[in-house]
Amino acid sequence: MKLATLRTANGGTTAALATGADSYLALPASDVGALLAQPEWRSVVEDAAASTEQTVIQSADADLAPLLPRAGKVICCGLNYGDHIQEMGRELPEFPTLFAKYADTLVGATDPVEVHGSGRVDWEAELAVVVGSELFHADEDQARQGIAGYTVANDVSMRDWQNRTLQWFQGKAWDGTTPVGPVLVTADEAGEHFQVRGYVNGELVQNGNTSTLVFGPAQLLSYISQFTILRPGDLVLTGTPGGVGMGMTPPRFLQDGDVLTTEIDGIGRLENQFRIHAPVPVNA
Amino acid sequence: MKLATLRTANGGTTAALATGADSYLALPASDVGALLAQPEWRSVVEDAAASTEQTVIQSADADLAPLLPRAGKVICCGLNYGDHIQEMGRELPEFPTLFAKYADTLVGATDPVEVHGSGRVDWEAELAVVVGSELFHADEDQARQGIAGYTVANDVSMRDWQNRTLQWFQGKAWDGTTPVGPVLVTADEAGEHFQVRGYVNGELVQNGNTSTLVFGPAQLLSYISQFTILRPGDLVLTGTPGGVGMGMTPPRFLQDGDVLTTEIDGIGRLENQFRIHAPVPVNA
Repeated sequence: MKLATLRTANGGTTAALATGADSYLALPASDVGALLAQPEWRSVVEDAAASTEQTVIQSADADLAPLLPRAGKVICCGLNYGDHIQEMGRELPEFPTLFAKYADTLVGATDPVEVHGSGRVDWEAELAVVVGSELFHADEDQARQGIAGYTVANDVSMRDWQNRTLQWFQGKAWDGTTPVGPVLVTADEAGEHFQVRGYVNGELVQNGNTSTLVFGPAQLLSYISQFTILRPGDLVLTGTPGGVGMGMTPPRFLQDGDVLTTEIDGIGRLENQFRIHAPVPVNA
Repeated sequence: MKLATLRTANGGTTAALATGADSYLALPASDVGALLAQPEWRSVVEDAAASTEQTVIQSADADLAPLLPRAGKVICCGLNYGDHIQEMGRELPEFPTLFAKYADTLVGATDPVEVHGSGRVDWEAELAVVVGSELFHADEDQARQGIAGYTVANDVSMRDWQNRTLQWFQGKAWDGTTPVGPVLVTADEAGEHFQVRGYVNGELVQNGNTSTLVFGPAQLLSYISQFTILRPGDLVLTGTPGGVGMGMTPPRFLQDGDVLTTEIDGIGRLENQFRIHAPVPVNA
């Protein structure tokens, strides 16, 4: 099944089931994270689909919120595609490079992205894994069982701030700059590998397959769970393939008005226009 | 005033006012973060103190929970004391080095700390700043006004995991390993500078004054708020002075059974015994 979080007329959100190309069915949960927090969430969805009193939302009217607006943890893996590792000038890693951000960074699949104070806004198209059950000290099999499904994300990065210090956090954790969605595709309906693409104003800039990940989804969740608990609705971003702007000669960054598109076959597409305000002079 | 979060008999927690050396007064909020989220929190405390129906908890019976068990953000600054920067072999920074952890890392002021799978458990005694109001794009004056108060923390670090990759997160974000408390001292009652000390089994190993911070509390909050919103109950750790185990010759780490004490004059003291299980062979 495909699940989304939609904004509602009263200023809130609702979890929703995509019932085809043209409509959604509202579900009794405020967002996909709140749905997944119910152990019997599959039954909740099935009951709603079988109900005679359905709230149907036409896709044309659907306002996509961030898929997991209140995710407790958003943990990202860097340097996880062989080709991206090479373009950044590094060697294949023995351990995953991990960093954290907060749910405030997330924006919806077609939301505008407002950036105040960075002049080096770069893209990182990524497969994101949505956690479906509590995982702590989980082995890889347990981690695999604990995957609710997959979605699309773009770990948009302010390279000037990212490179100010050794720790990337301050370039990665800007509120409202990480598009995620449009839907969660449950693990049982998703393939094993995903083709991840990024476009700037329609020009293909990234194109990688998750079969080349150094650390796959279950490996990442197992590794993280050795030190911190993962809960339903947490999000793990699996890293980006080659083709980021910082790796180009000369480096290329998003300009005010640019449209960033991020897509994964079988999941969906993010399309976000960037508004870049008062860029700071950069000496990174 | 001095505020704490105490565990209650029913398995929950309550915010509490320290009314002297020997007792606490229960407050109508589940923890200090929930209290601070009420704009009129000072009135809430004053009303409780003036009430004729008080719930008094003797200090001997008080079970200190993590001060902010549900902090939305726990953001840490590294390399912020001149002497610690030198012992780590680095230069004075132009920008604060920031990284994030989650509230799951926090433990109470006298809780045991359980570590599974690190053989290089190190200490970092720190002043922590508790956010008192929403801060976004705040200047330093606004940030100073937005400080609820100060508390004591120890950014306990698993150096083997921290040094596996360029990003420190995986050595810093272990659940239940960051002691914080025992109380929040409100900004109006706290001094401007703080003497921060760390002891291992009673031996003084760290002793620094926050007057030597490269980036002070208001500077840090203002800087962070340029990219992410800070909310009441969020926690910002200001970095650690010299004397961490990793900087010693030879390096020294916590052993199973060791007691780590962290104290700041005018705020209080954390005293945590470490249980270190099945250390992983280290090649960091």
